[in-house]
Amino acid sequence: MSLKEEALIFHRKTKGKISVESKSVIENVHDLSLAYSPGVAEPVKEIAFDPEMAYYYTSKWNMVAVVTDGSAILGLGNLGALASLPVMEGKAVLFKKFGGVDAFPICLNTKDSEKIIETVKLIEPVFGGVNLEDIGAPRCFEIERALRDELSIPVFHDDQHGTAVVTLAGLHNALKIVGKKLEDVKIVINGAGAAGISIAKLLVHMNAKNVILCDTKGTIYRDRGQGMNPYKEEIAQFTNPEMIKGTLADAMKGADVFIGVSVRDVVNQKMVKSMAKDPIVFACANPDPEIHPNAAKEAGAAVVATGRSDFPNQINNVLGFPGLFRGVLDVRARVINDDMNVAAAVAIADSVEENNLTPEHIVPSPLDLEIYPRVAAAVARAAMKSGVARFAVLPIDVELNARKLLGLG
Amino acid sequence: MSLKEEALIFHRKTKGKISVESKSVIENVHDLSLAYSPGVAEPVKEIAFDPEMAYYYTSKWNMVAVVTDGSAILGLGNLGALASLPVMEGKAVLFKKFGGVDAFPICLNTKDSEKIIETVKLIEPVFGGVNLEDIGAPRCFEIERALRDELSIPVFHDDQHGTAVVTLAGLHNALKIVGKKLEDVKIVINGAGAAGISIAKLLVHMNAKNVILCDTKGTIYRDRGQGMNPYKEEIAQFTNPEMIKGTLADAMKGADVFIGVSVRDVVNQKMVKSMAKDPIVFACANPDPEIHPNAAKEAGAAVVATGRSDFPNQINNVLGFPGLFRGVLDVRARVINDDMNVAAAVAIADSVEENNLTPEHIVPSPLDLEIYPRVAAAVARAAMKSGVARFAVLPIDVELNARKLLGLG
Repeated sequence: MSLKEEALIFHRKTKGKISVESKSVIENVHDLSLAYSPGVAEPVKEIAFDPEMAYYYTSKWNMVAVVTDGSAILGLGNLGALASLPVMEGKAVLFKKFGGVDAFPICLNTKDSEKIIETVKLIEPVFGGVNLEDIGAPRCFEIERALRDELSIPVFHDDQHGTAVVTLAGLHNALKIVGKKLEDVKIVINGAGAAGISIAKLLVHMNAKNVILCDTKGTIYRDRGQGMNPYKEEIAQFTNPEMIKGTLADAMKGADVFIGVSVRDVVNQKMVKSMAKDPIVFACANPDPEIHPNAAKEAGAAVVATGRSDFPNQINNVLGFPGLFRGVLDVRARVINDDMNVAAAVAIADSVEENNLTPEHIVPSPLDLEIYPRVAAAVARAAMKSGVARFAVLPIDVELNARKLLGLG
Repeated sequence: MSLKEEALIFHRKTKGKISVESKSVIENVHDLSLAYSPGVAEPVKEIAFDPEMAYYYTSKWNMVAVVTDGSAILGLGNLGALASLPVMEGKAVLFKKFGGVDAFPICLNTKDSEKIIETVKLIEPVFGGVNLEDIGAPRCFEIERALRDELSIPVFHDDQHGTAVVTLAGLHNALKIVGKKLEDVKIVINGAGAAGISIAKLLVHMNAKNVILCDTKGTIYRDRGQGMNPYKEEIAQFTNPEMIKGTLADAMKGADVFIGVSVRDVVNQKMVKSMAKDPIVFACANPDPEIHPNAAKEAGAAVVATGRSDFPNQINNVLGFPGLFRGVLDVRARVINDDMNVAAAVAIADSVEENNLTPEHIVPSPLDLEIYPRVAAAVARAAMKSGVARFAVLPIDVELNARKLLGLG
């Protein structure tokens, strides 16, 4: 059977991938009178008196909205809200399986940023956090910024920050293998959409000194003019310190690291050969990478990663968001900041033990459930340390709680 | 322990009443590649090609939005969206337990009807139906009307139609007990909000000839002027055929049936004594009835019902909406029409067997799970018969499917 047929049968079998279940047991009239009228009036009154009480008497504390407009679904593009539903349900499945988080799809029938912002503000009461998903750039930036400003719950755009977290986890370990330091290396990123810009920002936050972002017009630098937008202009202030002007091939000359979050086949072996000694190549375009991993190896790449599960070193977002949100929700973080993202990246990287670290194994398998409680604890610690946590919870308790939710011993 | 303490502990224990669960089993990398990238692209493409496919490959077919603005929460009034969440979660619990329906709370941070309508339109893709809840009258009427016109999924306002269905189920059996027919009796309804207007409409649809609706200004009749609104004016065209003008007490003289969906203590024993022989008194104001059931009995009422679980004959909405939506979703009804509501009412009434029918037992217990599959089958049949069902499904199959979902043998 082809993957296509298998995937359709997989979805058809259960008629969708998520259900809403009752945590309360209703066995008699008394239970009914507690769960619903008249007993339910009591938590209602408590919450009306003090909104904080919603985090104790309702499911809000653990509920994340997976919000999309279906404008940038996987590699498929703008197929609309309804067609995005299988992806958002899939996201909810991953949130539950790997983070013990309740997540619900909100697929919005509009591409109007103002309407998306307004709608998420209106539905906020039910949720403890927002995960934006598959919204095209540059609209995703303005939507995320507005929601971060206007909501009182944390907002995370997984295609930006989730991708950045897992990419940096992989890079952290790849640099260990080649014995280089982040602050010394030259890093070229191809693709200046949601992922590329966010990866560049997080690298700079981690003290990388020489990051060059490229788009279809070549390297991005201050006041380039052609093909710029406010988000590229902003990142140009902090990257490309030598103001290198030219093509991707020009930028890659002498680079230690290439990170592709763009499209297939834009890198060739000659470009890899032009890089510095022991080059690191992350060719993460989906489904087809910027350069085939075997070709990159042949051309001398010391470490190669892709977005695909059928090659070693898959840079897979699922390694990040479930544990990250677990930590965020457990300490009621007001926002998800760069320190928390870095903490998640390092925790993911560190879950590959030194003696297992090889060029073919720089990131853990997403099915290793042990990762997620550690990520949650690291994120919780970073949230508390950076002053954005509303609750103080021992990191070890966050880890133990996550282990319990994931059914680990 | 007081009910208040018990109710708070009940909610605190599970930290809310609902969770989002995965129906898909993810055990290995292959499962992951089917549920999420790259396999998930296949149902996405199918749905983009034909939107109908969403009913097979996603959870839309069984997902109901429980939508509120928190403006009329139970008997508590306008306490806002966040405070309404325990009630909406409770509703979701009842939908699951008694109907096998996935329901999710959408508590909207606005009282603006236009914004509520717009938001529900934007979130429509995820849902197979909409249940409006605890939205104050008369705004609930305009919101329901607009959504029925503009959505392609069925919309139901439980405080209107759900209450009407269960009230009529009770009345159907009460009339059997006193040996009267609906078309012959005089019925006085007190309260011209969501419930009262809907009960009056459904009674007229069932061929009741003499229905009089009252509000705080007395009887409602054509062109009364004072205290009218378009919805009262509309119902005045079909009710109060004798154009009786006066107080509730005036209206009740000689009436066979009183239905209260108003406030406490507006009926006294003298008013009950002024009614026709073997009067039926439904005093459904919550938490305190229009007249205490014992006082109504003493004054000669042949059958008394209330909204309370601590007296016989509780007119409880939970008897209606779960089975009703089960039938609606199973045949993909485009709308929920009066024929379907009547079918639900009769099925509820008929689930009290003749030999068990007494003045103290006119409605079944909500915990008798056998009711709901029968209601679902009756509603499905009525939907098909009235031409609003998209699917043809044998009523017996609807019943058997519902039995399976509810865990019945």
